[in-house]
Amino acid sequence: MTTRVLTGITTSGTPHLGNYVGAVRPAVAASHVQDNESFYFLADLHSLIKAQDPARTQRSTLEIAATWLACGLDPDKVWFYRQSDIPEITELTWYLTCVAGKGILNRAHAYKAAVDKNRADGEDDDAGINAGLFMYPVLMAADILIFNAHRVPVGRDQIQHIEMARDFGQRFNHVYGRDYFTLPEVVIDENVATLPGLDGRKMSKSYGNTIPLFASRDELKKLIASIVTDSRAPGEPKTTEGSALFQLYQAFASPAETAAFAGAFVNGIGWGDAKQQLFERIDAEVAPLREKYQALMARPQDIEAVLRDGAQRLRQQYAMPLLKDVREAVGLRDLSQVATTEQTTVEKPSLPQFKQYREKDGRFYFKLVDGHGEMLLASSGFDSPKEAGQLIAVIKKARRADELETPVMELHARTDIVLAALQQLRDAAEA
Amino acid sequence: MTTRVLTGITTSGTPHLGNYVGAVRPAVAASHVQDNESFYFLADLHSLIKAQDPARTQRSTLEIAATWLACGLDPDKVWFYRQSDIPEITELTWYLTCVAGKGILNRAHAYKAAVDKNRADGEDDDAGINAGLFMYPVLMAADILIFNAHRVPVGRDQIQHIEMARDFGQRFNHVYGRDYFTLPEVVIDENVATLPGLDGRKMSKSYGNTIPLFASRDELKKLIASIVTDSRAPGEPKTTEGSALFQLYQAFASPAETAAFAGAFVNGIGWGDAKQQLFERIDAEVAPLREKYQALMARPQDIEAVLRDGAQRLRQQYAMPLLKDVREAVGLRDLSQVATTEQTTVEKPSLPQFKQYREKDGRFYFKLVDGHGEMLLASSGFDSPKEAGQLIAVIKKARRADELETPVMELHARTDIVLAALQQLRDAAEA
Repeated sequence: MTTRVLTGITTSGTPHLGNYVGAVRPAVAASHVQDNESFYFLADLHSLIKAQDPARTQRSTLEIAATWLACGLDPDKVWFYRQSDIPEITELTWYLTCVAGKGILNRAHAYKAAVDKNRADGEDDDAGINAGLFMYPVLMAADILIFNAHRVPVGRDQIQHIEMARDFGQRFNHVYGRDYFTLPEVVIDENVATLPGLDGRKMSKSYGNTIPLFASRDELKKLIASIVTDSRAPGEPKTTEGSALFQLYQAFASPAETAAFAGAFVNGIGWGDAKQQLFERIDAEVAPLREKYQALMARPQDIEAVLRDGAQRLRQQYAMPLLKDVREAVGLRDLSQVATTEQTTVEKPSLPQFKQYREKDGRFYFKLVDGHGEMLLASSGFDSPKEAGQLIAVIKKARRADELETPVMELHARTDIVLAALQQLRDAAEA
Repeated sequence: MTTRVLTGITTSGTPHLGNYVGAVRPAVAASHVQDNESFYFLADLHSLIKAQDPARTQRSTLEIAATWLACGLDPDKVWFYRQSDIPEITELTWYLTCVAGKGILNRAHAYKAAVDKNRADGEDDDAGINAGLFMYPVLMAADILIFNAHRVPVGRDQIQHIEMARDFGQRFNHVYGRDYFTLPEVVIDENVATLPGLDGRKMSKSYGNTIPLFASRDELKKLIASIVTDSRAPGEPKTTEGSALFQLYQAFASPAETAAFAGAFVNGIGWGDAKQQLFERIDAEVAPLREKYQALMARPQDIEAVLRDGAQRLRQQYAMPLLKDVREAVGLRDLSQVATTEQTTVEKPSLPQFKQYREKDGRFYFKLVDGHGEMLLASSGFDSPKEAGQLIAVIKKARRADELETPVMELHARTDIVLAALQQLRDAAEA
């Protein structure tokens, strides 16, 4: 089976060179790997936890969608969609909420950090914290589980969320007795490139030291000119170590170009010249993307159509069938399918049936009942529905009395009646 | 406008006479009041917090739907639907989650009771508590707010939940600057009839003292025969005070019948005769309902169709349009409608615009910007978006410099420019 890889994209802010080098560029490169099925989604429902400026939410979503498309994400080859276009995600969130341990959510880092800040400020633990921050991990679990993603590449700070998604998925599987959900594996890229900003610190919106990815050529040049350097004059050798300018260059250059640039540092290149080279190097990579970006931004209706189309196809192919199973699992079922006594006698002779259930002791049981609901056999308790299921599979094949002998199961009817019922089941399965 | 009254129906267990007298009968009677628009829904999503037996969930939902229909709820006159058939409810739950204060949820009675029990048992506060119990009030708020219900008749134990629904709705209105949601009023019926069970305590599933509403005639007779009485012999006067048998009779009889029954008690009616009279009285009311119930249960596909139809019409008429507004409010918008600079310059000259927003200080502000985004005036902070809106309404009418003079607003451009911008707005409004 193809490996399904799922990547969430934050929809706040305007993308800068740090986002490009650290997230967009490597993810788009990964999307070109042919043997994965890749999912990229704009996490706009998540953004509502913090963002309460609707115009900005809309604008950011557009800019970020255009950015990923401009940088080479191909919606014909990967799934590219907006979280909020898949209503099954919020519905699944509720089903997962009903199996998620409240105590586990208390321990989520992001929530705990907010509580710690409140304590430091002498506030109530939950002052100003909305329930969205608290429930974030459950929504994220729904994002992942709804497509049964195998791998979720994230930063270290997100490991805990993936573990929670596994926990909620596992718990659902456990409670409802079947592997409805694939448990996702976290993929940590230890070499996430971080880029220095204009002041030498990590490029980050919160430091105000960013270079917008799609700054105009002039603006880019001006910003690069403002990168902080030391005061060595042209002709003096310069160190590449700790030089923001050098690190920026390296993030965009081939090893050969980087080596040549390092050589120029040793040979005393002037900062002005170095900045000019950096500018040209970045612009060489970014200019074609910028052009695509501008073309895309001029036709937002096309982006809207791409996103809607992705979501629509995904819903049909994955989300709706999965939700159908999940609703069936939890008991939100078509009422006309209830096996009422009235119906079963009138409409057709009922088949014997294996029933799996869980008792108050937390263990898993099964029984075989005949078409009238009379018990034919019953099992002892198992630790997992899987174990119970394995024994059922064995019993289903039994054709001789001795095949029904097991210490973890008891017959409640004559052996020949039980064997006849099993035969009836096999006949029906073949019919 | 018609008053919208919303009633949630728990979908667990099999209905007994206590449910009938205390909930179903009065609610169905209320549904016949013509000047209300009534909403009755099977709260199956809520039931998942506790119920993890899918077959029982399905069976209960069917039985309870059939019960309400048999007892006279008319799906052509009231809205009758299943919560889980309206996916907009779980979607709205997320939007409300993002404005609901986590601290408020900590104080919900049902959650606190579970925590108290854990403490008494020496367990961790949240041991065994799922997030569904914690988030219950937010889902309930979505149930109510999605249909902008005016009144929600509930028992005393539910008052807090309605207050929370008001709080979340109000907060959403506040954050997004318009009255998207009607704030529901709680309606407490102080005279909720409670019925004694077979042992004289309140009839309740948890006491195992119930009489199923649709017990067969024989079963009903047998159960009534088992009602606990004192040992007074026939001929001895009996007291009605504290007599479960008498209270049960009263719940089904007219005042005249009740008076006659009380007379029989004084005259020393034997318990056997009294029980026979009670049986006949209850059966007289229940028998036609039982017949309807059985007919309904024999055609579960009809019930399924009724529920689906209700939900489908409700979605079209209320849920989908409301969600469209709510998505627009929070900024989940059609990206082709983003006013990009490219578009606005090409397509039409921009108008000046009043912008309302909220600052980190929690207060509400507005500003007037011209078509290029230059600020023309800015307000001080207001306590509510309404106050800000009221001043905007006044300013919009200003035609003279002195009409712009207010201590809570500052001009950032020449007075004549501001007045011209306001005139431009008025012209556009008239065009």
